[in-house]
This record gives sequence, structure tokens and C-alpha cells, in this order.
Amino acid sequence: MPTDDDQWMNLALEEARKGIGRTAPNPPVGAVIVKNGQVLGKGWHRMAGHPHAEREALADARKSVGDEEIRGSCIYVTLEPCSTHGRTPPCTAGIIEAGIRRVVYACTDENPDHAGRADAILKAAGIEVVSGVQSKAAVEILRPFFKVKRSGLPWVIWKTGMSLDGRITRPPGEGQWLTNPESRQDVQRLRSTVDAILTSGETVRRDHPALTIRDPELLAGRSQPWRVIATAQPDSLPSDAPLLVDEWKDRTLLRERDHLEQTLRELVRDQGILTVLVEAGGRFSAAMMEAGLIDEVVAYMAPMLCGGPLPALGGSGMDPALHLDGLTFEQFGNDIKWRGRIRRVREV
Amino acid sequence: MPTDDDQWMNLALEEARKGIGRTAPNPPVGAVIVKNGQVLGKGWHRMAGHPHAEREALADARKSVGDEEIRGSCIYVTLEPCSTHGRTPPCTAGIIEAGIRRVVYACTDENPDHAGRADAILKAAGIEVVSGVQSKAAVEILRPFFKVKRSGLPWVIWKTGMSLDGRITRPPGEGQWLTNPESRQDVQRLRSTVDAILTSGETVRRDHPALTIRDPELLAGRSQPWRVIATAQPDSLPSDAPLLVDEWKDRTLLRERDHLEQTLRELVRDQGILTVLVEAGGRFSAAMMEAGLIDEVVAYMAPMLCGGPLPALGGSGMDPALHLDGLTFEQFGNDIKWRGRIRRVREV
Repeated sequence: MPTDDDQWMNLALEEARKGIGRTAPNPPVGAVIVKNGQVLGKGWHRMAGHPHAEREALADARKSVGDEEIRGSCIYVTLEPCSTHGRTPPCTAGIIEAGIRRVVYACTDENPDHAGRADAILKAAGIEVVSGVQSKAAVEILRPFFKVKRSGLPWVIWKTGMSLDGRITRPPGEGQWLTNPESRQDVQRLRSTVDAILTSGETVRRDHPALTIRDPELLAGRSQPWRVIATAQPDSLPSDAPLLVDEWKDRTLLRERDHLEQTLRELVRDQGILTVLVEAGGRFSAAMMEAGLIDEVVAYMAPMLCGGPLPALGGSGMDPALHLDGLTFEQFGNDIKWRGRIRRVREV
Repeated sequence: MPTDDDQWMNLALEEARKGIGRTAPNPPVGAVIVKNGQVLGKGWHRMAGHPHAEREALADARKSVGDEEIRGSCIYVTLEPCSTHGRTPPCTAGIIEAGIRRVVYACTDENPDHAGRADAILKAAGIEVVSGVQSKAAVEILRPFFKVKRSGLPWVIWKTGMSLDGRITRPPGEGQWLTNPESRQDVQRLRSTVDAILTSGETVRRDHPALTIRDPELLAGRSQPWRVIATAQPDSLPSDAPLLVDEWKDRTLLRERDHLEQTLRELVRDQGILTVLVEAGGRFSAAMMEAGLIDEVVAYMAPMLCGGPLPALGGSGMDPALHLDGLTFEQFGNDIKWRGRIRRVREV
């Protein structure tokens, strides 16, 4: 049975999800302020440099019920409140000032500057602290942030659209689309959850992709994802490639094909990204996979048999085979989407 | 809204399904006898040479309520009752003798000796006849029978177990199974619905398969499916191959690799089969597929990425791509099963 705490935290998680793909280098976080079984305010971190979720929720509560009513309330946050002065003042201070009586959070911040420090600060101010509520669901949202903090590498999602027999191209003359419009709309949603899209020079030459979020609703309040072309021959890219000439061409980066891990590290360091979506052909995808750089797979499968020489995942074979954990399935018309994390011996 | 007729016919369809894989060269058929909203009897055709479904239902009703009570009842049959003397006397005669007042059937028998004849015979005896009730569901069961009658070729199902990226083998040393035990149990059920399993010499050499129904419950009351090895080099088959030495070795047939269509026609003509399951590697599967000999696909997909050179469907590529219709999905743990019919310009 979910407790009241679980249910309020679920509301905070819903808030947090609104920020996925928008907050880098910060994590997506949500917060809800509750008193006597009533929501006084809620909020989510919208973008680096903007207020944290706790401050958004406090501002929301102030607007609707005023400072006095907030005193004695409880705040639910999906991540341990920050306790240091960054681009914004520490949330622990804001919580104490507001007279909040109880803080419930889901995950401890793995940032060593924060980890566990909030508890001591809040408790010293006479505030009750509960942690670990709905932490599993919160980790789903925070996984990229935690990976970056631990390893300096981003969370990398491999997206592929393929036939039932694992091919990514239809026979010549049949058009480029394997998957149906509903699946392709879902790819738009997927793109809106990432900070960068990585592709290969080969894919740019072959498919002329735009790799943009085209749905204005999904794009509202955020930039296009960075578009990163990994290529050994930047001169061979078609001069009219959309990535090089469209209105977001300043969001396109060219990187060396042979230094994939370094490219990913630099994207974290220089662009502050948390998540990368790989959209490329079988050869490049296999190179990323074999280098152990992929964390998650999203595969759209069309009810079609194509055969032929171009598999979605090329290369000489995985060894060992990669297993997927936390699998989910979703149906889009007659297409099916699989989503799962690559199982690792050690958690990243 | 389904009518009463639809609902009784659904009961007859449930009976018919019990015969799938058991009745060749006859079709699986079910029947239910109803009077005043009560089932008096039901039955299904169990095996060639045994009574037809109508006679099974009549016998069942006689046993429970007696001859007199059957008079004035309605019989629901999934296929037009036969009107000619085969190995058993015509069902139309049995229905008339029993004093049945109304006959409802789903599909017209496409056998030209029968097609539509039952209506005239029954109506001449003062019996009301309704046809076409739940005919779509009945066609699902009767499709192999109809294909054999139209073309002399059996209904051919390609079964494959593959990784998410369309490969059928795991890296060396990882064991042979891609799919999980639940999927493999479902393969047992699938085998129990067919009359023959077709494989290649290559698969026999590589995998030493048994291609049998191992679950005694599924095997009760029926023989093992025929096992057909298509090979250009019968001498190169391992002498200890299960198909050649096990207790069902008299159910194994060796056939020429290069005459696939002829092999299928002969299986219909000589063994009286309706359905064939293809369980083989990518090369043989592609040859069958490219020759247009496959009607239906059942694919079990495991949440694993394997890469490497052995796709489930090999060959140089389908042209045009083959589309699947009537798709259904089923989840077995983390495996997923797809089932669909190959779309054809002309229905077979």
C-alpha cells in the first residue's frame, strides 16, 4: 500500500519529469508543498540558472496562500535539497526561512558537495527529515545526472527504427520510412528528453537527417538538442546537409570519429550535457555499443521483413551478448517500441 | 453488440480450436447444439476417419438429453456441414434425421463438392439455414484448409527466435538459447498446431534439433508432426541426429533442398498435411520467404543484442519488403512474440 508520503512524492515526480531534457547540467527535480492534506504549491526546475524546484514550489505556494500559511508545512522533493551556494542560494536555507516543518526527499544527492549534508543542516534547524521515499522512481529520472557525476560520461541512449528482422532500410524505391507516423511522433518526444543527438558522417551523407525537435509544443522553453556529427572526413559531408545549413546550424558540432569516448566527455565538460541520443546506422551504432558507451536502447520495430545487408546493429558481434533490463513495451499502431537499459556488471 | 447467434458460434469456435493440428487432411471444425438457451451437446472433429463435429455434438446431446429433446433444436457449426459421403456419411443427413430445426454455420465450404450445397438440402427438409455468423473468426481456423483446397500447397508458418537485433545465435560459449523458458513452452504449443515441421540439413547439422512435441498433454491423442529435412546432401547429416535415430524416426522425411515447392505439394498429396512449421536458419528461411512459400510469421524476440553475421532472415534482401497483417503481440516474461500473416496482393 502506498503511504501518503508515497503519493505526495509521486506528485513531485510528475513535476520533475517536466524538466527532463531541459535542465542540463542540473538534474530534473520536482517539489510539492503540502499541509493538512492540501497542496499549497508545486514546481520544477526549468533550466540551469533558474530557481531550483524547492524555490519554485515555495514561490507557487506564496502566490496562492501566502507566507504565513506555509509555516508548518511539509515539502516533498525528488532529490536531496542542495546545501551549497551555486548559481542560486542553497535550498536548505530557503526551506528553513519558510518555516517548513518536515522535508521528505527521494534520492540522496551523489554530488559529494551535497551528499547527506542537507539532513544535518535541516535537523539542526528542528526540521524532521525523511529520505528514500519513492527513490526507485526518482532514480529513473536522475540516472543521467548520477552517471555524469560518477564518471564524467553522459547517459547515452541508442535509438533505432527497424524491421521485424532487424534491418534499417527498405528495398530501393520503397521510401525511407520503416516505422509508422505514431512511432515517428514518439521519436520527437524522445528527442525532447535529451541534450544532444549524436550521429555519424555516413548517416548525414546517406539520409540527410535534420535531427531536430519539430513539434513546437515539445520545443517550447528549450533549445534544440546539440547535434554532433562524428566523422573522419568532415570535408566529405554534403554542403547542403540540413545540420550544416538550417536555422540551428550553430547547434551542430563536428567531432573526430575515432575518439568517441573523448567526444562524450567533452560534451559533458564543454556543453554541460547529461544525455545523448545516438541516431545512426548499424556500423556506427555497433562501434558505440562495442566500446561500452551505450546505456539504454529504444527500438521501434515495424511489422515488416526486409532482409538484406544492412542490420540495425552491425559489427562483428557482441561478446558477450548484451542483455536489457527494466524493459518496457509500447505499441504504436502495428509498430512496437522496446525500451531497456544495457545490463552492466557494475552500475554506472 | 454480439447476438445470441454470435455467442453460440463462439462456443462452437472454441470447440473447433481443440482440433487444430489434429485433423489433417480434414479441417478443424466445432459444433454446438442449443435449445431454449441451453446447450444440449457440443463436439469437435478429432481426427480424419472419426465423426465430424456435427455428429460428435449430436452424440454428446443424445447422451445427455436423449433423441427426443434434440428435435426442434438449433445446431451451430463453424463450417458448412458436408453433404457428400466421404469416410463418414453426410452431416446434412444426420442433422435432418435428428429433427434439428435450424442450422447456423460460419463459413461456406470452399470444396466445390460441398460449397453451398448444404443450404439447398437442409432447406428442402424444412430447416432454417443461416450462414456467415462469425465467419472471420472461423476463417482464422480454416485458412490452412482453404489454402490447400485452392492451391494444393499447405499453410506455411515461419517460426524464429531472435535477439532484439534480429540475430539467431549468441556469442560462442553462451549456450544456445536466446529466448526464455516461457517462450520455448509456447513453441511447444505452436508445434502442436501443425502437421509437419520443415528444417534444413544445415540446421540439423548445426543444432541437432529434435523438433518434437515434448509436452505429453499436447501430444495426447495425436502423432508427432512429420519432420521434413530439406537437404542437398543427405549423406552429410550426422548419423546420430535425433531426427534420424529417435523413437519417432519413422516420422522423419528427407527431401531435396532444391525443390521446396514440390516438397510442399507432395506433403499435401502424400501425407495429407494442411500446415507446415519452418524452423531453420537464416539462409533456408530466406529461400522459403523469397520463393513466396511462407504465409505466416511467429517471431519470439529476446531482450538481448548479439550482433554478428547470422541474421534470422538472411538472403540478399526482400524485394519488395514483406508486410505483416493481422498482427498480434504476446509477452512471455521479457520476451515478446509477434504473429502475423504475410500480406499478399492476392489472397491465398
